[in-house]
Amino acid sequence: MKLKRTKTCGEANKKHVGEIVNLNGWVSTNRDHGGFIFIDLRDRYGKTQITFKPDLYPELAARAKKLRMEAVIAIRGEIKARPEGNINPQMETGEIEVEASEMIVFNEAKPLPFLVSDRESGNEELRLKYRYLELRTAELQSIVKLRHKAYQVTRAFLSDQNFLEIETPVLMKSTPEGARDYLVPSRIHQGKFYALPQSPQTYKQLLMVSGYDKYFQIVKCFRDEDLRADRQPEFTQIDIEMSFVDQDDVLSLAQALTQNIWKDVININLPEKFPIMTYSDALENYGSDKPDTRFEMLLHEFESYARKSEFTVFKSALESSGRVKAIVLKNAASEYSRKKIDILTNWVKEYYSVKGLAFVKIGENGFESGISKFFDIKLQNEIMNDLEIKTNDILFFIADIEAKTLQSLGALRLRLAKEHNLIPQNTFNPLFVIDFPLLDFNEEENRFVAMHHPFTSPNETDIKLLETNPIKAKAIAYDLVMNGYEIAGGSIRIHSKEIQKKMFTALGIGEEEAKEKFGFLLGAFEYGAPPHGGIAFGFDRLIMLLVGTDNIRDVIAFPKTTSAYSLMDNAPSPVDQRQLDELNLQIKQKH
Amino acid sequence: MKLKRTKTCGEANKKHVGEIVNLNGWVSTNRDHGGFIFIDLRDRYGKTQITFKPDLYPELAARAKKLRMEAVIAIRGEIKARPEGNINPQMETGEIEVEASEMIVFNEAKPLPFLVSDRESGNEELRLKYRYLELRTAELQSIVKLRHKAYQVTRAFLSDQNFLEIETPVLMKSTPEGARDYLVPSRIHQGKFYALPQSPQTYKQLLMVSGYDKYFQIVKCFRDEDLRADRQPEFTQIDIEMSFVDQDDVLSLAQALTQNIWKDVININLPEKFPIMTYSDALENYGSDKPDTRFEMLLHEFESYARKSEFTVFKSALESSGRVKAIVLKNAASEYSRKKIDILTNWVKEYYSVKGLAFVKIGENGFESGISKFFDIKLQNEIMNDLEIKTNDILFFIADIEAKTLQSLGALRLRLAKEHNLIPQNTFNPLFVIDFPLLDFNEEENRFVAMHHPFTSPNETDIKLLETNPIKAKAIAYDLVMNGYEIAGGSIRIHSKEIQKKMFTALGIGEEEAKEKFGFLLGAFEYGAPPHGGIAFGFDRLIMLLVGTDNIRDVIAFPKTTSAYSLMDNAPSPVDQRQLDELNLQIKQKH
Repeated sequence: MKLKRTKTCGEANKKHVGEIVNLNGWVSTNRDHGGFIFIDLRDRYGKTQITFKPDLYPELAARAKKLRMEAVIAIRGEIKARPEGNINPQMETGEIEVEASEMIVFNEAKPLPFLVSDRESGNEELRLKYRYLELRTAELQSIVKLRHKAYQVTRAFLSDQNFLEIETPVLMKSTPEGARDYLVPSRIHQGKFYALPQSPQTYKQLLMVSGYDKYFQIVKCFRDEDLRADRQPEFTQIDIEMSFVDQDDVLSLAQALTQNIWKDVININLPEKFPIMTYSDALENYGSDKPDTRFEMLLHEFESYARKSEFTVFKSALESSGRVKAIVLKNAASEYSRKKIDILTNWVKEYYSVKGLAFVKIGENGFESGISKFFDIKLQNEIMNDLEIKTNDILFFIADIEAKTLQSLGALRLRLAKEHNLIPQNTFNPLFVIDFPLLDFNEEENRFVAMHHPFTSPNETDIKLLETNPIKAKAIAYDLVMNGYEIAGGSIRIHSKEIQKKMFTALGIGEEEAKEKFGFLLGAFEYGAPPHGGIAFGFDRLIMLLVGTDNIRDVIAFPKTTSAYSLMDNAPSPVDQRQLDELNLQIKQKH
Repeated sequence: MKLKRTKTCGEANKKHVGEIVNLNGWVSTNRDHGGFIFIDLRDRYGKTQITFKPDLYPELAARAKKLRMEAVIAIRGEIKARPEGNINPQMETGEIEVEASEMIVFNEAKPLPFLVSDRESGNEELRLKYRYLELRTAELQSIVKLRHKAYQVTRAFLSDQNFLEIETPVLMKSTPEGARDYLVPSRIHQGKFYALPQSPQTYKQLLMVSGYDKYFQIVKCFRDEDLRADRQPEFTQIDIEMSFVDQDDVLSLAQALTQNIWKDVININLPEKFPIMTYSDALENYGSDKPDTRFEMLLHEFESYARKSEFTVFKSALESSGRVKAIVLKNAASEYSRKKIDILTNWVKEYYSVKGLAFVKIGENGFESGISKFFDIKLQNEIMNDLEIKTNDILFFIADIEAKTLQSLGALRLRLAKEHNLIPQNTFNPLFVIDFPLLDFNEEENRFVAMHHPFTSPNETDIKLLETNPIKAKAIAYDLVMNGYEIAGGSIRIHSKEIQKKMFTALGIGEEEAKEKFGFLLGAFEYGAPPHGGIAFGFDRLIMLLVGTDNIRDVIAFPKTTSAYSLMDNAPSPVDQRQLDELNLQIKQKH
């Protein structure tokens, strides 16, 4: 290669003045000052100002003048100190410039669809189509570098802790539990399919049966779900499994890993001991199993006050085993017009299917407007006293069945906090949520389903509940939550045949069905399965938190849209008939 | 967890005598010496001998006696020094034993299908079915650990060299070039398909266009090919791409990476400078583009002697532009009966489609048997002198079209070397093979195809050959070969639109077709593509060499058979009709 670089564009400084260097990179800016051409040449490492002097190299300066933004060039020249007034203290290379004496243009660039120096100059659709250009932006370059660091820190930490990195298959068996599998038709075994892993769950448990003791992998997983804004069809997780451990061991490890990542990647010291909260406390106080604890505004129990009030809506909710809870928004009552409250009311009704949203404002003389008339003065004072409410606060109430009350008020809490800037920025509040329910009742199928998966261990003391009152049984399952996001989740697994049998019975899974679906794993458990458990971190989510973005597409080099489509290469795309014939498949005609 | 381990089974030694410990692990052996029970308890870290004394703990000893091999237990006991005569210097823990006072049986084990202590006690099919048990064998445990180390060393080295780890999509666009893609039907975009990557080739080139400069990834790749014994449908590669580099830069990096892996993983110093051989020299001298250079036995040019001989078979081969080459097997003529030679002859005829295998033995008085009568004494002496042949050597000859002559003799060279133990063990001979042809002629399709891929750069001096004599053009493509295996391969890519156009023309790919197949990559190249190139290492192959196995299934935790089938979980398997309906697919009826 001619004029191969001898330095990167981020490297030269005053020490190098007088050196002859070759630089390779992209034309970031190109300015003409009366025939003198100034180019900022950019690579991953930085920028260097190149000067082309028409008096010394007229032909070269003329060529340089014609260079468009983002052309790729090589130059050769001497490093010179910049004149005093031209020093740029913002740039690493701001004290020098390179006086070019030779140049090769490797490639010209067409006019750009948007500016690499200004990400907002194109809409997201355009940027995804030209992702390779968006990836040149300073923002994405810095995210890619941070993500690189996070991979290395994670693996170094886990390796130091004696974990073994083991790859598990991508072409695996389809098990129609949980989310929908992506399928891969087999050509050799026609009519049969592989599935892409939703997680390496069974394999990591098998590795424990095989005695590997501590396993990890940073691994791609796949879910063919109708995508939400923060989901991708393929995502990356840090998958971890350990033998001869209980919940404390897994939480300690997860805590130490998270602390290490935050420290080594963004130099933040997380709390020495992450708080632990039960699932039911999280729901009761925050209306969410992934509470954002960066701010308070807890959900207040309102049952006793509701009973003492005259408000029949609350009373009838309670009578039909519903719940009444309230949140207090401090010092904002005056901002809430009827119209503004209607917007909130419609929102909770539409998205959380609750019957309504009640409110009262606190005036100089107690409750005002909303449902204030249903509370006598004594009750008002009691409430204001108990909940430490002050003038100009506003209370919002939901009265509905428990799940809806908690969920909607939790969502309202977050919305109000965002709208009123109550969430401290640059704060990281990790929290373990534990004691998840073991089972969930699926209304559609009229049966219990595993909240986590069918191998999640019940709390030891709750095993008997499996036969008597399964919905009350708690699991040894835990999530790591930060700033309102679930960043990791896991459980201790069942290693006893008897408990596994009870679990299947509770789930209504017969012996035959269990054998067909999980046969090889259950079989493995007959040859000496150790107690084991694990956790998996959503790696993309982790990076989102580290860089402070809400857009998952920011942290993935080549993401897909919410319809699982790649705007850059148009995947998925039609395939040749020959390819389908080899698979013995046909696409059904639309009716 | 009760009796949670306080030490691993590989940890306790004489220093710990007197300590009370909990150990968790698998029963490796269980011996009864007159009521005294001795159990070797095993985990990933080692083995510790546990003693159960019937005089002290009669009930415990009775329970221990009943434990079957591979049961998982926890014990509590005191570390004691072994009596002088019982010390086992082979074991890390051989100076101590633990006198058990408590025991929990976590899980019993059924009688095993084969012995974990003796991998050969089950055939491979059985072992693959019970892979989780085979993974307990010392051999596989040590391979898994070594593979873990190799991952970490690779990433640490590349990170230190300023490479960025970047994940590329698994669900990508199908491009029907090269091998057959695995397809993934899209549910949302019915009738369309993703493909699993055969390599991240296009993405890594796009990352160079995006300015990432140095990229790597240890990544799963997929090929739906009819499998050979040493192939798997999913395999792992170390994928590397660099900008502003030429071949020397990529080879230096590959050399340094390989040296680092060998040093850090198995403490072997590879040569400081790997030899470089051209593709044509490799074929001429070794009959292979991945020569095993651990031993000589080169292919000798025999044309001039053949012309002087009376052997018409040789002469007519030469007249029809064929080749005559010979190899010498030293000091082994007396071992070669007619029958043994017939076996070799049939083998080369069957597998390499050559017309025949000629030979002569060297006796006290010159050539003997075979085709010796066609060589007069003068010619015999000339040959023996030139080729440094001695009594009891045997010469084998192939005369056929060039490709067959070279390939068959190369294969015979390897076979004879193996049969005669001429290959030094524990020797690693790395070698770069360079100057590969750019194109290959596909007889079936009657057109040129890219030997590597259509973005491989021709040698600068050969660009003009693209229009005049394309088959003669060499590529800037290179392989890293070791001990007869290709462990890495790569090329410098085309970054100039003009050369790319010439390449497509030579390949008979029209503008429309190029646009359809490679549109987004060619599009990207219009916005400032730097000169770039890369290399990819077959990671599974690398591990095979490091551990010294010929079986690729040894180095993959959960491998598939040669028919891409998993004997453990029976993947691929039939799926629910509902799953197919959602994809709008149907399986064609067999006719």
